[in-house]
Amino acid sequence: MRDNDTINLVLLGSTGSIGRQTLEVVDKYPERFKIVALAAKDEVDELKRQIIRYKPKIVAVDDDYTYRQLKDFCPAGVEVKAGIEGMCELASLEEVDFVLIAVSGAVGIKPTLAAIRAGKRIGLANKETLVVAGDIVMQEARARSVQIIPVDSEHSAIFQCLKGEEKNLKKIWLTASGGPFREFSLQDLARVTVDMALKHPNWKMGPKITVDSATLMNKGLEVIEAHHLFGVDYDRIEVLVHPESIIHSLVELVDGSFIAHLGVPDMRIPIQYALTYPERLVSLASPLDFFALKALHFAKPDRVKFPALDLAYQAGKTGGSMPAVLNGANEVAVGAFIRRQISFLAIPAIVEKVMQKHTPLVKPTLDDILAIDAWARKEAEYLVLKEAN
Amino acid sequence: MRDNDTINLVLLGSTGSIGRQTLEVVDKYPERFKIVALAAKDEVDELKRQIIRYKPKIVAVDDDYTYRQLKDFCPAGVEVKAGIEGMCELASLEEVDFVLIAVSGAVGIKPTLAAIRAGKRIGLANKETLVVAGDIVMQEARARSVQIIPVDSEHSAIFQCLKGEEKNLKKIWLTASGGPFREFSLQDLARVTVDMALKHPNWKMGPKITVDSATLMNKGLEVIEAHHLFGVDYDRIEVLVHPESIIHSLVELVDGSFIAHLGVPDMRIPIQYALTYPERLVSLASPLDFFALKALHFAKPDRVKFPALDLAYQAGKTGGSMPAVLNGANEVAVGAFIRRQISFLAIPAIVEKVMQKHTPLVKPTLDDILAIDAWARKEAEYLVLKEAN
Repeated sequence: MRDNDTINLVLLGSTGSIGRQTLEVVDKYPERFKIVALAAKDEVDELKRQIIRYKPKIVAVDDDYTYRQLKDFCPAGVEVKAGIEGMCELASLEEVDFVLIAVSGAVGIKPTLAAIRAGKRIGLANKETLVVAGDIVMQEARARSVQIIPVDSEHSAIFQCLKGEEKNLKKIWLTASGGPFREFSLQDLARVTVDMALKHPNWKMGPKITVDSATLMNKGLEVIEAHHLFGVDYDRIEVLVHPESIIHSLVELVDGSFIAHLGVPDMRIPIQYALTYPERLVSLASPLDFFALKALHFAKPDRVKFPALDLAYQAGKTGGSMPAVLNGANEVAVGAFIRRQISFLAIPAIVEKVMQKHTPLVKPTLDDILAIDAWARKEAEYLVLKEAN
Repeated sequence: MRDNDTINLVLLGSTGSIGRQTLEVVDKYPERFKIVALAAKDEVDELKRQIIRYKPKIVAVDDDYTYRQLKDFCPAGVEVKAGIEGMCELASLEEVDFVLIAVSGAVGIKPTLAAIRAGKRIGLANKETLVVAGDIVMQEARARSVQIIPVDSEHSAIFQCLKGEEKNLKKIWLTASGGPFREFSLQDLARVTVDMALKHPNWKMGPKITVDSATLMNKGLEVIEAHHLFGVDYDRIEVLVHPESIIHSLVELVDGSFIAHLGVPDMRIPIQYALTYPERLVSLASPLDFFALKALHFAKPDRVKFPALDLAYQAGKTGGSMPAVLNGANEVAVGAFIRRQISFLAIPAIVEKVMQKHTPLVKPTLDDILAIDAWARKEAEYLVLKEAN
């Protein structure tokens, strides 16, 4: 990044929730950010609007059909690319300073690696990159001294609280809203519908992550991310239920001090922080009114009612290819739940069964991981069909 | 301070609450700290025990009678000094690295200035130094690039949270337990006794500061301290009632982020932090159990029931010699309350009356301030007598 200069930005996943909020930050500071490239999956209409507004030099989309639609639409001078290879090309463009990875799913891994290899500064809002390929990605980043700045509110909070205190760290405390079913009994959980699961109490997010919040799998995936991002053992990462989502996470230091990051639950704060770090600018979020807060609550997560959390710890501790299995099976199960094929409680049950079938590789390559991911998805789909019948 | 070496320590106020807890920290890390000098007011028996245990080269006491007692007691090789001049000598000893100012009252000012002029690193646990002479002390410290590390839990919290974020600061939020009478009506407050006021819900402290906590004058004095320590205008310092005293204070940054310091209410954490900064060591405090916390509460301070807070803001904003008047009058009024001469509500009433009588000097010298302090005390004593009759 050139100080006090315009930051040339690539935004991968521009039509999703994080992508759109990133563009709101760009809109607030048009003199600081230049959108050089955009990538999206298949939301063509939104992407067209973004191309008109931000005039990127190059765009990428996921599939051939969308690619052809865009090709016809784009004026001369705007290059159009397709697939993961297209995204990798965007992430390594010479003039780019910062790559924000806001795609969801395992498609984020290769572009992240491409950005690392090109020495770009990276804002990471893609969970799968670290959950599935954390060892590989962090090793590359360390080898090339590339800084990966987390965009997730919890990891951004830890990143901010840990600054300069890395060697004094005792534990990381990830806060969790506990989801909408925190107070439900197991019987209640058995009757949870998709509509119920898609209403998150605090955060506005996409459907997959909202369901993951309700099962606590989201927090489990974040535990694995935190392990990789901050190089901390799993027994030094705690999950703390905090229904108000005002404390975004905490670090516990050796002397008994806790440093916490607080604020309104608004993703534009951590997105902007990643973009402007180590600077801070006035943000679009409304200020937190402490006098109106009244109380913040805390509780231990219920690992019996929400077994996904322990599955994630287990996958993380096993390491190697196991987190890829956890993640792939979960993605399929959540998709099936959203399509009303399986029940809420079947999600962690399916993930657990697929994990049990897997004999983990200790040091998988990226190709190993992607093959195992595909295997896990197939296994999960098979279990979904069994469950649905 | 010589890194990884023994820190030669002077402890002024060794027999008080902060002084004793400082020695507990020293006891935990005997290889890191060498007590070079001790000073106390008149608790001779405790000081004798400390001399036997820590073998300082030099000690100072407040008055001649105590001085003679100690002279007889001390073995050859232990120098004994008396009065503020004695403390100033201790604070500027050549071989000293760190001076911890834990005396209470205006007697702390001159030794603090002596330590600054000698270029020592300073841990400041004396409120009056900054409340009464903040402009003078901070100007000297800045001129000599001397770092003053706050020991007070709130200011230590802010110091820790502000590290590297100084230019991003929007507001300082000082938390206040609200004292034992937070929920009292004005009628209830009129009937408060000394015994009731001396029971602080969270912190174990001396009687003067415990009464100041009950009137909120303590928080008001801390607002003035924060103004000087962090160079922040009064309209950017908020007081937030937080009865559990777990969040020790917060900083609000321009982007909507809040960074907070949390922990059990145990002064040994901020004392140790001041001594080992920027390092952190395992402390004597029991760890904070977040799962057992359940809830943290917040409220706006009641400025009608607790007028001392606004008196302090007013004195701070007026500046010059006014904070010395606030502090001197308050010390006399609190003493009179502890001796059961006046009522609880008479404390702020007397302070206000003395402030009203004072025409502040804009840029007082230290001698001006000490003369005005003496005047304010006399005025307050006169009002105490009037009240008592």
